[in-house]
Amino acid sequence: MSIPNAFYAQSGGVTAVINATACGLIEAARKQPDRIGKVFAGRNGIIGALNEELIDTSFESSEAIAGLRQTPGGAFGSCRYKLKSIEESEQEYRRLIDVFKAHNIRYFFYNGGGDSQDTAHKISQIAEKLGYPLTCVGVPKTVDNDLPFTDSCPGFGSVAKYVAISAREAALDVISMSATSTKVFVLEVMGRHAGWIAAAGGLADEGHNDAPQVILFPEIQFDKQQFLAKVQESVETHGYCCVVASEGIRYADGHFIAEAGRKDAFGHSQLGGVAPALVEMINEGPGYKCHWAVSDYLQRSARHIASAVDVEQAYLLGEKAVELALDGQNAVMPVIVRKSDEPYRWVVDSVSLADVANVEKMMPENFISEDGFSITNACRSYLLPLIQGESYPSYQNGLPNYIGLENRMVEKILAT
Amino acid sequence: MSIPNAFYAQSGGVTAVINATACGLIEAARKQPDRIGKVFAGRNGIIGALNEELIDTSFESSEAIAGLRQTPGGAFGSCRYKLKSIEESEQEYRRLIDVFKAHNIRYFFYNGGGDSQDTAHKISQIAEKLGYPLTCVGVPKTVDNDLPFTDSCPGFGSVAKYVAISAREAALDVISMSATSTKVFVLEVMGRHAGWIAAAGGLADEGHNDAPQVILFPEIQFDKQQFLAKVQESVETHGYCCVVASEGIRYADGHFIAEAGRKDAFGHSQLGGVAPALVEMINEGPGYKCHWAVSDYLQRSARHIASAVDVEQAYLLGEKAVELALDGQNAVMPVIVRKSDEPYRWVVDSVSLADVANVEKMMPENFISEDGFSITNACRSYLLPLIQGESYPSYQNGLPNYIGLENRMVEKILAT
Repeated sequence: MSIPNAFYAQSGGVTAVINATACGLIEAARKQPDRIGKVFAGRNGIIGALNEELIDTSFESSEAIAGLRQTPGGAFGSCRYKLKSIEESEQEYRRLIDVFKAHNIRYFFYNGGGDSQDTAHKISQIAEKLGYPLTCVGVPKTVDNDLPFTDSCPGFGSVAKYVAISAREAALDVISMSATSTKVFVLEVMGRHAGWIAAAGGLADEGHNDAPQVILFPEIQFDKQQFLAKVQESVETHGYCCVVASEGIRYADGHFIAEAGRKDAFGHSQLGGVAPALVEMINEGPGYKCHWAVSDYLQRSARHIASAVDVEQAYLLGEKAVELALDGQNAVMPVIVRKSDEPYRWVVDSVSLADVANVEKMMPENFISEDGFSITNACRSYLLPLIQGESYPSYQNGLPNYIGLENRMVEKILAT
Repeated sequence: MSIPNAFYAQSGGVTAVINATACGLIEAARKQPDRIGKVFAGRNGIIGALNEELIDTSFESSEAIAGLRQTPGGAFGSCRYKLKSIEESEQEYRRLIDVFKAHNIRYFFYNGGGDSQDTAHKISQIAEKLGYPLTCVGVPKTVDNDLPFTDSCPGFGSVAKYVAISAREAALDVISMSATSTKVFVLEVMGRHAGWIAAAGGLADEGHNDAPQVILFPEIQFDKQQFLAKVQESVETHGYCCVVASEGIRYADGHFIAEAGRKDAFGHSQLGGVAPALVEMINEGPGYKCHWAVSDYLQRSARHIASAVDVEQAYLLGEKAVELALDGQNAVMPVIVRKSDEPYRWVVDSVSLADVANVEKMMPENFISEDGFSITNACRSYLLPLIQGESYPSYQNGLPNYIGLENRMVEKILAT
């Protein structure tokens, strides 16, 4: 029998370091030519497997694969596609197994967030049911930092670093302008359900400038009057106010701030933007001149200022995934286990996918201050290690030297 | 007679490198203790002079002054305050001269854009009229890159680099997501009148991914149908579309896109945001899923990824300002003169403020493509040298080690 192949797919929103995980995984697999034949990557994630659109990574040079470590985005394409339950979509699951069988794929690596870990778990179940020998390993990835068991998720540390740096830089700007012009700056960051990314903005304050003075977490019900009072207090005390707002903040009635009561001239519900909504409140309230930014994809693709800790962990989890698979561990996910905050020490371990699936890790209550507007020292101790070190990409002609792969497709065998 | 002092003020919107100019200027002055006594900085710009709020920079250590080179924002505070004509506000001009006289200030350095150069020119005129011996030197600064005579303005190269990198990173993100999710990404950048910053987004395309496919310049009248057609063509050809839009784009009738017809639920004209306005058009037109970012202050304070060329030029222009002043050259501004594109060679020269005042340098017509949606090779040749090199700040604990000055105030002498 020929040497079995592996399948790897990227899932959901990409990050600055998901390709570093791919790099760790492919490099580890290449070190085991007797045990892993080729690593096939799904073109646009799991959809690539369903459509038998497999990328043969063996055509990529070792330099190209190494370049993945410093390239943001998803090099093979990702997708937002959730397989339903096995009962509802057994045909899709069977199709996956057919594709794996046709291409002698015996290792399945799925690099994503909570939904993806759930999918990886289900695929391990269907493979077992059908008697197909498949080792399934989930690999964590999400800027939302909401996977359980792992101390942090690859992708989060780099967003955290970007947001902390951006908040500090913008604070220095607004401080300079506040005497005669802009007094309030609002930075909108990602985080629909959990405030991890907004919390990272709090790291900007090391006592130099006390910004951001206001952090808005999705965990805390938004109260307009309290928010405006806090902004006003900050402007009166410091001369300015810097706000970091999570996109997911809501009123007590559950409505998102970004959509609450905002219509365009045609009466259509207006598209998001927590930052402009908050600025409008300030304009109608205390009336300070405001500036606002929405970092959106910039924050999660900012490989130019990625956290070195994050890049290293992303790489090692990819490597570990191969090790686990070759060790015959099925339906598991490698995780980061923190041993101490200072000095920051951590090890890689693994947990069962059955335990991970569909559990969301929220911010602990003691990470948010009493008044709900800032982070606690406990939160700072947790976050700070994750943004350490600057893993700069190489540059060419003034721009980061991000890699583009060949992405040669494997010839299809099956009928569609 | 005691050694004369100097006055330095930062004006208008701050940049990632205006403090590098302050650093060059103060370090140059400190090398001439026999000719320049102290450098006083205006607290919050020229307002500091009017209010006799002077910062004594001699209390700052040489390490602190050196740290200015890597710190964004305006270390002494800036302001948006334009002195009117001498006829309208002679009293204000006389007050400035009184303050300078009281503190033995014989050198006036004004670090700003077009308005500030105009002010510096007027101050030289009133000093002459009043017979007060004052040497006035304007020092260029503006992310808008719209000052005449100087090949580029300190501050612009770093914004250009930030925007080019951000556009490239976000493009890699949307490419990864486009099969099943986001197909269009819109990045809003600064530039009310001139499209220099939007043009820099065009540098992201080096042939790897062809993004951005659409650049919207304030120089080109916005045509909604043409824009939507271009976005659609891009999505159909590439599978996605990346848009870089200047905040200053307008319809043929002169209305800004950001305000055109957009009202909130209360009927108030809605605050800015070109990016969300464009996304709304796409949603109502072809209906692609979009993401958008507004970089606002982040782009001009992003010292963490400043252009090394920009930092060096900012520093040298500060240094040159002192040299010009000590050389007795009054009412001048140091400028960058480009000698060649490749290899990039340039020298520092100077021009008369009388020639600079109130002239805006627009993008040359041959810098924008025929269809109005991208930059030409001529534009690329101009821009590329300005983003070369990465001038990274030092880091401490995962964050840039930005300096905070003591900013000790000089005791007031005059009645207010």
